[in-house]
Amino acid sequence: MRAAVLRSDRLEVDEVPDPRPGPGQVLVRTLACGICGTDLHAVKHGRRMAEVMAEGAAGGIEAVDLDRDVVMGHEVCGEIVELGPQVSGWRPGEVVTGLPTVIDERGAHQVGFSNEYPGGFGELVVFDAERTLRPEPGVDPRHVSLTEPLAVGIHAVNRSGIVPGEAAVVLGAGPVGVAVVAALVRRGIEPIVVSDYSPRRRELAAVLGAHTVVDPATDQPVDAWRREGGRGPLVMFEAVGVPGMIDESMRTAPFGSRILVVGACMEPDEIRPIRGIGRELTISFSMAFAPDEFAESLAVIGAGEVNAEALISGSVPIGRVPDAFLELANPEAHAKLVVDPSL
Amino acid sequence: MRAAVLRSDRLEVDEVPDPRPGPGQVLVRTLACGICGTDLHAVKHGRRMAEVMAEGAAGGIEAVDLDRDVVMGHEVCGEIVELGPQVSGWRPGEVVTGLPTVIDERGAHQVGFSNEYPGGFGELVVFDAERTLRPEPGVDPRHVSLTEPLAVGIHAVNRSGIVPGEAAVVLGAGPVGVAVVAALVRRGIEPIVVSDYSPRRRELAAVLGAHTVVDPATDQPVDAWRREGGRGPLVMFEAVGVPGMIDESMRTAPFGSRILVVGACMEPDEIRPIRGIGRELTISFSMAFAPDEFAESLAVIGAGEVNAEALISGSVPIGRVPDAFLELANPEAHAKLVVDPSL
Repeated sequence: MRAAVLRSDRLEVDEVPDPRPGPGQVLVRTLACGICGTDLHAVKHGRRMAEVMAEGAAGGIEAVDLDRDVVMGHEVCGEIVELGPQVSGWRPGEVVTGLPTVIDERGAHQVGFSNEYPGGFGELVVFDAERTLRPEPGVDPRHVSLTEPLAVGIHAVNRSGIVPGEAAVVLGAGPVGVAVVAALVRRGIEPIVVSDYSPRRRELAAVLGAHTVVDPATDQPVDAWRREGGRGPLVMFEAVGVPGMIDESMRTAPFGSRILVVGACMEPDEIRPIRGIGRELTISFSMAFAPDEFAESLAVIGAGEVNAEALISGSVPIGRVPDAFLELANPEAHAKLVVDPSL
Repeated sequence: MRAAVLRSDRLEVDEVPDPRPGPGQVLVRTLACGICGTDLHAVKHGRRMAEVMAEGAAGGIEAVDLDRDVVMGHEVCGEIVELGPQVSGWRPGEVVTGLPTVIDERGAHQVGFSNEYPGGFGELVVFDAERTLRPEPGVDPRHVSLTEPLAVGIHAVNRSGIVPGEAAVVLGAGPVGVAVVAALVRRGIEPIVVSDYSPRRRELAAVLGAHTVVDPATDQPVDAWRREGGRGPLVMFEAVGVPGMIDESMRTAPFGSRILVVGACMEPDEIRPIRGIGRELTISFSMAFAPDEFAESLAVIGAGEVNAEALISGSVPIGRVPDAFLELANPEAHAKLVVDPSL
């Protein structure tokens, strides 16, 4: 099949072997697959990600060998083309999405960050049948492909334990930050204060329901919240994921605040623990989502409860994936780009 | 009065003005005052601590000016010698301890880290009458002076939310680490696994009730716990407070663990956030204690529920405080040294 391949730490478009559905698996033709910040990170920091996986973090997911080909892409909507042995309840032609984890006799694998299970930047993907889900009929496959990133927001908000009456600050309005905003809005949190340097991303956060958006070049979100009468502990979501952001969150967080780290910073990072101690902060790291949060995300999209169309800024063919990775570095150009192998 | 004074970032023994009890305050003659790790930090890192206080952390405690004299010492047992105006319910001669926070018309002050309120490394200390407590009659003043450090352990354990059935790992068996062990034992936690390079400190942890002690030079506490059948998330208490320990905790913590940072690291510190994300860790910073935790600590000591004598390795006169600070750098020589101005 044709795929964008991570090979020797760079992306190339090439033909690679078709994946085959094993027992309990379905083979899916990719209809739409979002490009995630983690994919961008993986090109730059894939070796470190692989090291951390090998350390036994990431919940026992099998480590990846970056000296072999990897086809990334874990935000997949596709159409079933073939059922593996021992699969029932599915038929070819059905539009589906799937949890990007496959468990076979060798262990657990991350679809889109594995040597065995290519992701949606290729034409074909394998899912475990029991981790495959049906969207509401007729939902745009590009919207279905948002199930995964929006589930990340649902999980981070669940993990924060935030309840109505508490205020939220979200640092960063990239795909992760806006997913957090969408989940906070659904939970009835007010106010939601979002900061991002990009006017386009601030606008997107506001479209999704953020109450206040600020440009950190000229204003700080905690200051903006205080000016509007905010008092007491905050729940802050760090959704930027570059070095220095955790410490910056700690510097500005009010006493007793909870900081949820959702942005994946791959590099070593410096913090000043005394800031955490002096303010009795709690820093929780959030990764991925549980299966029920993934299902909830799909239901939210199916019910039209989130403005999915606003989140997508364009579609690209497989041949343009390497260029798309470069373009995504510019937050003014794109929010979420979706790979469409039919283009 | 005679006092050990922090002056120009070093300790000197000198005469300083006597403090005077204002409205609602009591004047106390120091009987015993423990030397705390924070005091040691303050000599080395006082400027950074003062900066953090000035940033508005530390719950609104007034910042200290290290270009002026500071008499440290916040683990005080003393005898009331004089009541300020508008004080009732106390009489001279009573043995007391007090919360080391004084609130006057200018704000909140940290007794022992303030330009206005000298601490127990001097002969006289002022407490707010309403934050002064009576120990059980006849309790050794040196034991009463442990109220503050043992309250730090109670608070950290309360803040962790640990419940019987969960396992605890304590990194570091200095005064903070053993205070955590004492609080864990009272809560019925099992197992409690403690690591420290010092044989003497490991022995002290075992005396206080730790179930397993390990030398991190040859063994890791998480490994020791696993060998004994430990599974699932842990509650880890980082009570060392030097750079690198938070990241080391993150490296070894099982998925879903909670890390309580109780050791005050004053320097910038490096962490690898991806470790926290991959394992969905939560890092909570713990500072000081609430008034009810302080009172609980005093009651525990009064009831003989903790082996207070084991925690104290010696008493020193005010004139030897500068030397004692140097000696405390050697964990084999001392656990807790108590300043006794009568010596």
